[in-house]
Amino acid sequence: MAEDTPAQTHTDRRKNETRLWLGILDVHSFIYPELNKRLKELTAISVSKFDVLAQLNRYPEGLSMGDLSARLKVSNGNVSGLVNRLRKDGLVDKTMSTDDRRSFVAVLTPAGQQRFAEAARVHTEVLGKCLSHLDTQTLEDTTAMLKSIVNMPDNKVPSQDE
Amino acid sequence: MAEDTPAQTHTDRRKNETRLWLGILDVHSFIYPELNKRLKELTAISVSKFDVLAQLNRYPEGLSMGDLSARLKVSNGNVSGLVNRLRKDGLVDKTMSTDDRRSFVAVLTPAGQQRFAEAARVHTEVLGKCLSHLDTQTLEDTTAMLKSIVNMPDNKVPSQDE
Repeated sequence: MAEDTPAQTHTDRRKNETRLWLGILDVHSFIYPELNKRLKELTAISVSKFDVLAQLNRYPEGLSMGDLSARLKVSNGNVSGLVNRLRKDGLVDKTMSTDDRRSFVAVLTPAGQQRFAEAARVHTEVLGKCLSHLDTQTLEDTTAMLKSIVNMPDNKVPSQDE
Repeated sequence: MAEDTPAQTHTDRRKNETRLWLGILDVHSFIYPELNKRLKELTAISVSKFDVLAQLNRYPEGLSMGDLSARLKVSNGNVSGLVNRLRKDGLVDKTMSTDDRRSFVAVLTPAGQQRFAEAARVHTEVLGKCLSHLDTQTLEDTTAMLKSIVNMPDNKVPSQDE
């Protein structure tokens, strides 16, 4: 075979990068709607609410809106909206921070803990069905590759000038 | 090493599936916000609008709202909203379908074609920066693995009862 010219190689590289990104989007839209649908049907909470409950479940002492927002990688406004709706559902409560008695943190209520446990079972079950065709090695290899994408060496991280 | 009991194997499998899904979400939130930010800054369009323009660019004869919705895997209502906003921006026009003269299709305007070309350059550039640390083999292997997730064998596809 003829060797690639530098221009061809550059174009191929760009195409491969786009294909990888489209692959991520395809997997996302293969799994996410099914997760959302089953969680809503069986436990009456969306994936967005589930994500908040999952974080609060990991931190029984509670999380501030700022910490929740950073962990969920969504805006403060969105997090406040979700937390307020979860409070109306009786799944989350706001309580005074033990570290800083002037600030408030969100915590799971007992009903929230129970609902999260039910939702986590549904979440696990949906992933199990969507990924049932992959052998263990493929699961592990793919996870490792995805990690290597996010763990970019420091010297290559694009400038985040915001 | 001691052999895993079936219960352990099952739990490990569930954990591996969750890790893979969290890996997908991490890559998504590593790339998507950067794409959105740069597209908005440099070409004044969001990723959602970009996705519509990209589909219309592939089909110069135009796409109906239903076709666009199916291709973008978003609801008809969302697509109509996006197309209306793109019409206000002068990037998209609605025209009569050549197949069915009672229905309308969305097409790119010349300004839309130009804006899409600019945005596609930005899109490519952002992906190039975010993925610059991956060698070609990793790019190709990861893409192939992502494809194998979505291309589930027919006999394993979970029932989609909606």
